[in-house]
Amino acid sequence: MAEPSLQALVEALRRLPGVGAKSASRMAFHLLQHDREGAHVLSRALEQAARNVRHCSECHTFTEDEVCTTCRSPQRDRTKLCVVETPADQAALERTQAYNGLYFVLMGKLSPLDGIGPRDIGLGKLFARATNGEVQEVILATNFTAEGEATAHVIAEALKQKGLKVTRLARGVPAGSELEYVDLGTIAHALVDRRSR
Amino acid sequence: MAEPSLQALVEALRRLPGVGAKSASRMAFHLLQHDREGAHVLSRALEQAARNVRHCSECHTFTEDEVCTTCRSPQRDRTKLCVVETPADQAALERTQAYNGLYFVLMGKLSPLDGIGPRDIGLGKLFARATNGEVQEVILATNFTAEGEATAHVIAEALKQKGLKVTRLARGVPAGSELEYVDLGTIAHALVDRRSR
Ligand SMILES: [Zn+2]
Ligand SMILES: [Zn+2]
Repeated sequence: MAEPSLQALVEALRRLPGVGAKSASRMAFHLLQHDREGAHVLSRALEQAARNVRHCSECHTFTEDEVCTTCRSPQRDRTKLCVVETPADQAALERTQAYNGLYFVLMGKLSPLDGIGPRDIGLGKLFARATNGEVQEVILATNFTAEGEATAHVIAEALKQKGLKVTRLARGVPAGSELEYVDLGTIAHALVDRRSR
Repeated sequence: MAEPSLQALVEALRRLPGVGAKSASRMAFHLLQHDREGAHVLSRALEQAARNVRHCSECHTFTEDEVCTTCRSPQRDRTKLCVVETPADQAALERTQAYNGLYFVLMGKLSPLDGIGPRDIGLGKLFARATNGEVQEVILATNFTAEGEATAHVIAEALKQKGLKVTRLARGVPAGSELEYVDLGTIAHALVDRRSR
């Protein structure tokens, strides 16, 4: 494909995570052959999002305003602050409809190997917010990966020193799963974290 | 994610082939958090390609001109015409540096179930070009899938009636492979198409 604007499009599509040379070509072909309207729509959506989306000054999540709708809502329980890695994790928690407190979105996780330290994920800001006098409990909902656990550990230690109640999402057997097919580590954690009933 | 321009971006990314809700969210997050410049670059590339790229009036491939560089090249052997499904297939053949003729790019394949008939893949135009007096051999290089084979069959029948020499890429054992691991159909074809040497 020697055409410059086609090559430029394939190159640009490769900047998307998980998109290699083959997928990028397939995407470019699809848009140009079957969905030019889609190309225009995506072009405008990218431009608008890149221009309008910024970080909530309170919780750090994506928003188009100074403070996001969640942080502004008078219906939210301001004594609870749930710490998540990304807006997608926040959305997952919201879908459960089991939480009505506020959030702090790290927009990442501690990852020393990638050079991502406490400042990159706004820990200073989190600590300031957690100690604003309103928050009584910080719920750590970072992922249950090595990096997510390390991040939770660092935050927990710092906040406990400040006298705050810090909790972590429970680990356990996923709803609907058969023990036979659940990995040993998960079962072990479910045993340790077992609840009386 | 209640933010309208973020939602619009996720929706627009889902128009890309192979991109579901989760990948689209991940892509949007990546661009907004780590690569805003990439969002602008991709936006412009989409706009430019959608505006500038059209079909070569001779071979139907993507080009920014009336006639593509390949069709215009005086170095090309104009007695050979290779029929491929997509520009990506054309690019794969070009990379072999084993072919110096011209191309006709169907921009698809016959697919009655999807309502894609002879007109959609420009067969009338292909037949006109193949019978322009210059072309002496038409090489069918559609894919070796059910639809690609059916497409090759239809084209071959029509062109043979017009007295043209029609050939098909050889089927056989892939270079570098061990017979033990090659599927039976491929070995059977390689036997039928065996060459003296
Ligand atoms: Zn907020
Ligand atoms: Zn051409």
